[in-house]
Amino acid sequence: MFFYIYIMIQQYHIQLPAFSRGFHIITDHILNSVDQLPEKGVMHVFIQHTSAALTINENADSTVLLDFETVFNKLIPENVPYYRHIIEGSDDMPAHIKASLLGSSVNIPVKNGRLKLGTWQGIYLCEFRNRAGKRNLVITVIS
Amino acid sequence: MFFYIYIMIQQYHIQLPAFSRGFHIITDHILNSVDQLPEKGVMHVFIQHTSAALTINENADSTVLLDFETVFNKLIPENVPYYRHIIEGSDDMPAHIKASLLGSSVNIPVKNGRLKLGTWQGIYLCEFRNRAGKRNLVITVIS
Amino acid sequence: MFFYIYIMIQQYHIQLPAFSRGFHIITDHILNSVDQLPEKGVMHVFIQHTSAALTINENADSTVLLDFETVFNKLIPENVPYYRHIIEGSDDMPAHIKASLLGSSVNIPVKNGRLKLGTWQGIYLCEFRNRAGKRNLVITVIS
Repeated sequence: MFFYIYIMIQQYHIQLPAFSRGFHIITDHILNSVDQLPEKGVMHVFIQHTSAALTINENADSTVLLDFETVFNKLIPENVPYYRHIIEGSDDMPAHIKASLLGSSVNIPVKNGRLKLGTWQGIYLCEFRNRAGKRNLVITVIS
Repeated sequence: MFFYIYIMIQQYHIQLPAFSRGFHIITDHILNSVDQLPEKGVMHVFIQHTSAALTINENADSTVLLDFETVFNKLIPENVPYYRHIIEGSDDMPAHIKASLLGSSVNIPVKNGRLKLGTWQGIYLCEFRNRAGKRNLVITVIS
Repeated sequence: MFFYIYIMIQQYHIQLPAFSRGFHIITDHILNSVDQLPEKGVMHVFIQHTSAALTINENADSTVLLDFETVFNKLIPENVPYYRHIIEGSDDMPAHIKASLLGSSVNIPVKNGRLKLGTWQGIYLCEFRNRAGKRNLVITVIS
């Protein structure tokens, strides 16, 4: 005689292909990298880098992605005289700041085996380097 | 003979009433929508929209809420010529950017049946649209 | 006869010493405050204040920390005429805005008893007040 309590933490390490500088929807990359999602829980996606970020925003009109790139470049300009950390190029320090403004992780509720994103929500990779390599993500599903 | 391990994920889908553009404290809306909180855990609150956000900030002086609105409008101005995504009005693209700057979710520790917010912390709904509708939240409590 | 399912929520309340205004790496403070980390899980770190924040960024070159302070002061300037909440000094309202831009918590995956930070990632305390006191954190490890 025993109780069976079905609780699980699933964790996945995935590598995104190198993306160009800019904002990219990666919802399908993530969904294709995990097993069947649980009935109820939370998915935590974490990026192991300091010059790229994750955020959630609109998944339909691709001009939104272009506007994100424009606005973040205006908000955190390159080639201003006050940066000290410029050894890796003019995109380096702005990339660090942008990464922290958007954050290194997103949390998304899971219900009935699906991410409970809103209709217009997608997961963005925010790539801030001019010549970036592959990016590593750690996905943890708590259910 | 058995072990009893009390672990639970509780999930709630709630709809906030339509709020005016600006910043609004919704801590009580959230607390009134959930059952008794557990002894120990984390509450994850997620907003299913891309033109509104959640954040945690000061809960006492209402001028803070007004200053948030002023500062975010200066930080991400409307009616600038570089937006491409303007089909839904001048508040549309700025709303998307502001939403990602603040984020679509907050995580708050839970202890002894209460949110472990600091004395001066409250949960904000950040409404960036001029004429917004009701907003859907998904609350997940892991304990 | 029974199943043994090892699931746990560990929670720690810690107090950081007072730090000067600026950005500080506190990864070791946090690791020294918790027990052995689990095989698999997520660590959630929450700051119970509205004029300081947590973020994750580069852990190697200390000029990054200085550039963060410079950039955030340019992004959210002090002594501008439009703040209403100025009772506690010119650093007060900017501190609230900066705190929400960076956020009150970070989530980090845990694997094999270690934080799964990237090679160059560290946890930052972002202190926005000129004369700040000790800061309280709540750390929750879900495993």
